[in-house]
Amino acid sequence: MAAAEVSNKGVILKQFVTGCPTEDDLELVTGVVRLAVPPGSASVMVKNLYVSCDPYMRNRMSEHNEASYMSGCEEYTLITDPESLFKINHPELPLSYYTGVLGMAGLTAYAGFFDVSKPKQGDYVFISSASGAVGQLVGQLAKITGCYVVGSAGSDEKVNILKTKFGFDDAFNYKKEEDLNAALKRCFPRGIDIYFENVGGAMLAAVLPNMRMNGRITVCGMISQYNLEQPNGAPNLFCLVAKRIRMEGFMVLDYFGTYNKFEEEIAGYLKEGKISVVEDVAEGIENVSTALIGLFSRHNIGKQLVTIAHE
Amino acid sequence: MAAAEVSNKGVILKQFVTGCPTEDDLELVTGVVRLAVPPGSASVMVKNLYVSCDPYMRNRMSEHNEASYMSGCEEYTLITDPESLFKINHPELPLSYYTGVLGMAGLTAYAGFFDVSKPKQGDYVFISSASGAVGQLVGQLAKITGCYVVGSAGSDEKVNILKTKFGFDDAFNYKKEEDLNAALKRCFPRGIDIYFENVGGAMLAAVLPNMRMNGRITVCGMISQYNLEQPNGAPNLFCLVAKRIRMEGFMVLDYFGTYNKFEEEIAGYLKEGKISVVEDVAEGIENVSTALIGLFSRHNIGKQLVTIAHE
Repeated sequence: MAAAEVSNKGVILKQFVTGCPTEDDLELVTGVVRLAVPPGSASVMVKNLYVSCDPYMRNRMSEHNEASYMSGCEEYTLITDPESLFKINHPELPLSYYTGVLGMAGLTAYAGFFDVSKPKQGDYVFISSASGAVGQLVGQLAKITGCYVVGSAGSDEKVNILKTKFGFDDAFNYKKEEDLNAALKRCFPRGIDIYFENVGGAMLAAVLPNMRMNGRITVCGMISQYNLEQPNGAPNLFCLVAKRIRMEGFMVLDYFGTYNKFEEEIAGYLKEGKISVVEDVAEGIENVSTALIGLFSRHNIGKQLVTIAHE
Repeated sequence: MAAAEVSNKGVILKQFVTGCPTEDDLELVTGVVRLAVPPGSASVMVKNLYVSCDPYMRNRMSEHNEASYMSGCEEYTLITDPESLFKINHPELPLSYYTGVLGMAGLTAYAGFFDVSKPKQGDYVFISSASGAVGQLVGQLAKITGCYVVGSAGSDEKVNILKTKFGFDDAFNYKKEEDLNAALKRCFPRGIDIYFENVGGAMLAAVLPNMRMNGRITVCGMISQYNLEQPNGAPNLFCLVAKRIRMEGFMVLDYFGTYNKFEEEIAGYLKEGKISVVEDVAEGIENVSTALIGLFSRHNIGKQLVTIAHE
């Protein structure tokens, strides 16, 4: 008996991107897929319900992109290495959380904060791009750890969410600050112990002289730099010496082996109401391009995802 | 009986410096000192035999200098806190070594390389400003550790010393390289595990994309930046993420407690002939200004010091 063939819409990259990506760089294509797996193989055919949109995807649009995470963006995907999949152990929680707080963004926040930033109770923590999928969890984990937490974001609405929804001690709209250095001095009169770096550029340059002795800068991403052909430099890296600062990059790939521990801990916090989640959910694969491109103009409020099919 | 009074020549800073310091910024002054200590005090009067000249001293010439190492530059110094002095346990070695390889520069190299860089046998190590007091020891410690070691310096003579005297595997004259990135690719076709950073600026920018996975950048100093009113930025810090690079500053002050262990180990290497020393010795306190300023135009070959009085 022949397996059913169905149409399979997907979003592909039409051309390599330099500068800021636009919706014209992506294309919605319609293919056909047989709802079957090769006989005798361990492959599985997956019907995708949600697609995650993340800043790191910008890198995959460049011609000389570095090895990065993989993710198909289509209605159906044949998974040929199912051992690479993660089991969902908490189906009682919203499934969409597994694209964010319980998925790669969540593990990024968890690993980066605990393993790289190495926080201590009472530390002064600053998070840029703080309302995003990673930032919002880092901030809440920092509060749970007993840190003083300040975030920056690009709109008053986001700043309000940081303070009211995620429990940040303070937050500011970087677009409204004439002088980022002054904003940081106002929020951190005693300096910053941990900077969770998501943006780079001018923010990093402002943060460096405001770091405290033995401070840590955890470099998760630098979204301000991804679309620049000539990236900015931080002109005051010499601060690293006198203040004995450790600045360290990391990739969530290295932490996949710790997923179960992470999932249990975060699922627990979610059920206890200790962690809140803000998602920005678009509807339909036709809207993936808009949602993904919107990340770079900071249109999203919280974790950006797209519903491809309903559960 | 009254203590003898003698003249005490010293070098002082005449004015705060912006940009490149010149000999006009320093002044030789002649004072008078009583060769006695206050009755009942633990103070000691020291006749200085050698004065060390180090790049970090540039920072102390700036108006808004950060807390840094202290050192008087004069013929006689009253030391009011003798407990801060280090005992010389190996007087059989040249006393001048205690300004360099057995002094602060040596401890800087030792602590920075072993405690911050955390080398492993077989690591690819790059050292900038490699013929200087710190660099020359880092390179030799790296060779003792079983690393592959390349250094950069600013003259063919220095490059030759690196290869023939200090046993570096390779070295290059950065002033003769049109493209620092190409020079690093030639010397490190498989990339760099450890960069011992003494210069900053364009060299750091060239090093970043040549780092290997899990590389370490130990930030000891950034001499190329000290005289710039508008320091350069490294435009490619995003390399830290994909390659999981740790970039960390340190100060030798934090390692004074490990001095004895360091002194024993290095004194042993010196006696076994496993470590060579190149010093650039000027004569007389009248020549301190020239020697110190010469550091910033890279006139010195090896550790710069000045003999103030003969033993």
